[in-house]
Amino acid sequence: MRDILILTEQDLRACVKIDADAIRVAEDAFRALSSGTVIMPPIMSVEVPDIHAEMDMKTAYIPGYAGFALKVASSFGNNAALGLPNLSGLMMLFSAETGLLQAMLLDNGYLTAVRTAAAGAVAAKYMAPENVETVGVLGTGEQARLQVEAALLVRSFSRVLIWGRDMAKAEECATQLKDLGIDAGADSSAETVVRESQLVITATAARKPILKRDWLHPGLHITAMGSDFSGKQELEPEALAAADLYVTDRLAQCATLGELRGAREVGLMTEDPPELGDIVKRAHSGGRSPTDITIADLTGTGAQDTTVATLALDVARTTGLGSIIKG
Amino acid sequence: MRDILILTEQDLRACVKIDADAIRVAEDAFRALSSGTVIMPPIMSVEVPDIHAEMDMKTAYIPGYAGFALKVASSFGNNAALGLPNLSGLMMLFSAETGLLQAMLLDNGYLTAVRTAAAGAVAAKYMAPENVETVGVLGTGEQARLQVEAALLVRSFSRVLIWGRDMAKAEECATQLKDLGIDAGADSSAETVVRESQLVITATAARKPILKRDWLHPGLHITAMGSDFSGKQELEPEALAAADLYVTDRLAQCATLGELRGAREVGLMTEDPPELGDIVKRAHSGGRSPTDITIADLTGTGAQDTTVATLALDVARTTGLGSIIKG
Repeated sequence: MRDILILTEQDLRACVKIDADAIRVAEDAFRALSSGTVIMPPIMSVEVPDIHAEMDMKTAYIPGYAGFALKVASSFGNNAALGLPNLSGLMMLFSAETGLLQAMLLDNGYLTAVRTAAAGAVAAKYMAPENVETVGVLGTGEQARLQVEAALLVRSFSRVLIWGRDMAKAEECATQLKDLGIDAGADSSAETVVRESQLVITATAARKPILKRDWLHPGLHITAMGSDFSGKQELEPEALAAADLYVTDRLAQCATLGELRGAREVGLMTEDPPELGDIVKRAHSGGRSPTDITIADLTGTGAQDTTVATLALDVARTTGLGSIIKG
Repeated sequence: MRDILILTEQDLRACVKIDADAIRVAEDAFRALSSGTVIMPPIMSVEVPDIHAEMDMKTAYIPGYAGFALKVASSFGNNAALGLPNLSGLMMLFSAETGLLQAMLLDNGYLTAVRTAAAGAVAAKYMAPENVETVGVLGTGEQARLQVEAALLVRSFSRVLIWGRDMAKAEECATQLKDLGIDAGADSSAETVVRESQLVITATAARKPILKRDWLHPGLHITAMGSDFSGKQELEPEALAAADLYVTDRLAQCATLGELRGAREVGLMTEDPPELGDIVKRAHSGGRSPTDITIADLTGTGAQDTTVATLALDVARTTGLGSIIKG
């Protein structure tokens, strides 16, 4: 019988927040990925179209880390009708030395939300123009808000414009951001939002492009993070081709799950683009000019799960959070 | 906060044994696999050669089942030196309706051991000659013993011959079987074991063939279940080609992890063989004659994990075993 630490969502919300630590460990993940030493198999996915359900498993072993995570993320489209969240999930952390289970992180998707927002901040930190006045968000869900919160840690901006298919939800999202002291407003035109912003985040479940190539303008960075489960697409393929710099979080994933998939399906972007970790490792803007158009395509990696789960466990052990079961 | 049932290895040993139920649910798994409706993605595998470690994740959604399992199986070759088992693992059972975690089965690999032995019994039931006098086992580990126990539920035999690279371990395995009332003995020649047996089980970690084509004889069934993690091989490729009937548990898995891989690497067995489930569904011996030579290549499937985990949860709920945590 060995000790397994159980951490609930409440515990984990006390351990990990959208802050400098979360961004630091996201950077660590991207840096490790680009070092070539991370062992990260393809995502394992169970798709059950009949019930609008998908469950994805991610994992990554990062040399030097005491543990590695196995993350389960589920999207069950009929849950809302049952009064349950459609999106959920959990993580396990296994000893990198023995393979034995160290901790169950029953986060219901919270850590994924944090590490996804933190990854957006890393992309903005290394790719967005130094001076961002307006941030535009396409999407009105949890990530719409969290991505803005995370971006505030790496850029000072004075205004946020929110667009969504449902204007009422865009207004609600803007109100939530205003409660955080951010000058946020809803806009009924995705085009206006993109044209007026220097940093745009797409965080929708779109399956057809919602951001057009013609809206691109000098000095614009786009982080597309909605496309993760299969079949999603947010950007016109031509937008990727028009960018001065396009990066993936993980090439193999973006080619099957990210924006790159749609572009390659129409014969664009056939050459292999760099990964975000390559940009992070250079620790500067990649030699770009302030007028460059840049795009980061984020699908979410097991490496991010391993670094955020490790952070959570470290904090939980330091603060004595969680309960022990014998397994 | 939702209830998650935690079942320890001790609980699970009380719920599931090598018995008719275990064989029944293994048959259910193979039958479902051959129905074509099971959603079973490729195994997700983390291999860390530097530390002789591998962790494999398996899952399968079977329509009609209330839950589906995610199974983690680990092999960390340096654990024994730390006083820990090299092989371990656990299963999770998720609701097929909501994707939410229902139960953690902290079995340390016990359920895998049972369902693997039960699968061997299913292969023997449908493929071995009706009259088996001698069972031969190549291998001296836990599965060597469990496969014999399971085979006893489907065939009456009076003698077991055990071969292993380490004769002392073969003697020890024979002694354990004698304690179960089975006339078992060790033999220093794998060839003799195979030639004298009507049912042979290979359960080793061999990476080069230990069973030669020349040893095959009329009225022999072989179940090869050692080859599961990558790089393993127990049978000479020519043995597969010489058999009257060769079946996989899952074609795609055997072609990458099972005996089929080695055969195809040397240009044999290029046509797609049937799966065990196809034989089970026919519910007879497949029209074979008692002199046929047959081989079952078992790599272990997520479908078996889902059916055995479902059995365990059903029994645990009926008997009130386990403890609840809030997640």
